[in-house]
Amino acid sequence: MLNFESFNPTKVLFGKEQYSKLTREIKQFTAKNKILIAYGGGSIIRSGLLDKVKSELNDFEIVEFGGIEANPEYDTLMKAVELCRKEQIDFILAVGGGSVIDGIKFVAGAVNYNGEPWDVLIRKDGCVFRSAVAFGTILTLPATGSESNSGAVISNSRLQEKRTMGGPLFFPKFSILDPTLLSTVPPRQVANGIADAYMHTLEQYLTVPTTNYLQEYEAEAVLKTLIKIAPGVIKDPSDYDLAANLYYCANHALNGNLKNGVPTDWSTHMIGHELTALYGIDHARTLAIICPRLYEHTFDRKKEKLERYAKEVWNITGGNAAREAIEKTESFFQSLGIETRLSAYTQDYEKAPQIVKDRFIERNWNYLGENQLITPEDAYEIVRSCF
Amino acid sequence: MLNFESFNPTKVLFGKEQYSKLTREIKQFTAKNKILIAYGGGSIIRSGLLDKVKSELNDFEIVEFGGIEANPEYDTLMKAVELCRKEQIDFILAVGGGSVIDGIKFVAGAVNYNGEPWDVLIRKDGCVFRSAVAFGTILTLPATGSESNSGAVISNSRLQEKRTMGGPLFFPKFSILDPTLLSTVPPRQVANGIADAYMHTLEQYLTVPTTNYLQEYEAEAVLKTLIKIAPGVIKDPSDYDLAANLYYCANHALNGNLKNGVPTDWSTHMIGHELTALYGIDHARTLAIICPRLYEHTFDRKKEKLERYAKEVWNITGGNAAREAIEKTESFFQSLGIETRLSAYTQDYEKAPQIVKDRFIERNWNYLGENQLITPEDAYEIVRSCF
Repeated sequence: MLNFESFNPTKVLFGKEQYSKLTREIKQFTAKNKILIAYGGGSIIRSGLLDKVKSELNDFEIVEFGGIEANPEYDTLMKAVELCRKEQIDFILAVGGGSVIDGIKFVAGAVNYNGEPWDVLIRKDGCVFRSAVAFGTILTLPATGSESNSGAVISNSRLQEKRTMGGPLFFPKFSILDPTLLSTVPPRQVANGIADAYMHTLEQYLTVPTTNYLQEYEAEAVLKTLIKIAPGVIKDPSDYDLAANLYYCANHALNGNLKNGVPTDWSTHMIGHELTALYGIDHARTLAIICPRLYEHTFDRKKEKLERYAKEVWNITGGNAAREAIEKTESFFQSLGIETRLSAYTQDYEKAPQIVKDRFIERNWNYLGENQLITPEDAYEIVRSCF
Repeated sequence: MLNFESFNPTKVLFGKEQYSKLTREIKQFTAKNKILIAYGGGSIIRSGLLDKVKSELNDFEIVEFGGIEANPEYDTLMKAVELCRKEQIDFILAVGGGSVIDGIKFVAGAVNYNGEPWDVLIRKDGCVFRSAVAFGTILTLPATGSESNSGAVISNSRLQEKRTMGGPLFFPKFSILDPTLLSTVPPRQVANGIADAYMHTLEQYLTVPTTNYLQEYEAEAVLKTLIKIAPGVIKDPSDYDLAANLYYCANHALNGNLKNGVPTDWSTHMIGHELTALYGIDHARTLAIICPRLYEHTFDRKKEKLERYAKEVWNITGGNAAREAIEKTESFFQSLGIETRLSAYTQDYEKAPQIVKDRFIERNWNYLGENQLITPEDAYEIVRSCF
């Protein structure tokens, strides 16, 4: 087992009608009577969630910032930063999925940053967020685990870039997970959420054999649960118990626990982010495109762990189990209605391998994956095999 | 899934040689240059651990309090309370197992309490700890999970009482888990630690069938890991990877995660505590005595979950699986060298059923277990069947 530090101070309020605790929670982090509520498109307005939340917050003056898009945009978020500065906001309530929550993590760090916050995202020397405005979340779409971790991914479509940020300052103070909200989420996003949670787990599990028995069983617990609930939750997102399992799985897939003491991969994500930056393909769908081909490309190195995954998660043994496990994984994504070939999303796919390769070289991302053996040339080959 | 709130702000520093981070961590919680180090018997002195820890703390004046016993005693702990008051301590480093850590939770609460702290433990009207001195821990014996939760059990042998306390104030600020320390733990305590972690998991799992699929798989993950590592870790506690799994299992068994959204039992603990209070039997051993008989006594209500436990954890199916799972559980405890009959520990066992029953009645503990169906009369029958 590798040494690790594990820390997650976010309070999770899980279940039906936890909104009544909002005022109690927020008052722990601000003495002011004014907060910002941030959200994405109009779905939380149409579903009545925004009104419901506001009706619980009579003690506060509410400033609103809507319009945070999927793959939250730097330019959009900088408008929220300006609003926070103007209104002297010291608490933000993010209502939405991973994009809104990720976006608010960036906003929370940028508000008190002197200089151009993009410099922090590109890791320019000496540029870091040194403080963050306190924030809490109400999660609508279960997928990214952002409601219980301190990481975020921010897009800049002008530069066709997607960049990560994070650190201990960026844990939400609290997150409300209400599984009844799943029925307000578009079916496409429910499918994405399942795939995203599944892939987050694989990135921290499908590496090499380890002696981290508990971590391996725990990762398999998430995978088996997602496989078990997926057909039902796709069919009827208003089934409370199934929805609750999805919220809980997505949370556990990336609340930090699965990474404790284990080698992690994340190369599917690193390549996938480029496909979103290039083509605007949903994040989860980029993972479903890359993952099977990446596992094929790294088959010899991952074979032993694939065999364990085959046995424990898919109940497959035998000489071809590792290959079959990759097929099962791809079929699982397809069963969610997710296409696993790049050409299903764009006709402009031919340029992708070279662009991804060039970008990795430019950023000195010379070695990815749990063994640090995936080179920019490998990334080229992997993307090429995804057509 | 039941509604729940989940919160655990303890930072875990896991692995070899994490002591070098002690000063960094402690300085976040005190501006003073004086701290209390609290420990139990002499084993941390003999093993050299105390000297090693002190050598990392050159920035601080060290006040020591040793002699916190297994099942930490109210009278002993009150001496530590007095010492903290006299020395104006605002940070305590607990070095030891669950007893030392539990004891320091009580001390942390009692230092600034006006009145007799025992009143808090017996839940006398209006008596609560309203603040706590900050504390961190270095865990020697993995067992209770106390290093990552906010609960404690305090004994009062004058009254033959064992009482619980806890709450959000009582999370350690950090806990260092160093699996190399397992080889300094007496073999009897290693066995106890395995049994304790196993039983903590069962209390939160072996109840009724639920639709909490992820929680069930996660509980099974801990149980399967403990079964897998137990023979090796008993044989060679210096095997780092096996020891690391034990530390991680004991931590996960009671860091709060397994109870999220599920019904819990805890009746084996409630009865077991009385056997410790009466006879001084090791906590873990009281659980091994009570558990098999309690599951037999509540067999019809637990049968369905026992069948799942049989299948998923012990790979047993068939008409007799539930009974066999109880036998397997008892055999597992015995394989650790733990006797599972009360008469193996005391010849004075005949009085136990009546005393336990009377105490439960006296405290209005009229209904225990996940269904609230275990009455004081049931407790009498269960203890009677343990002879």
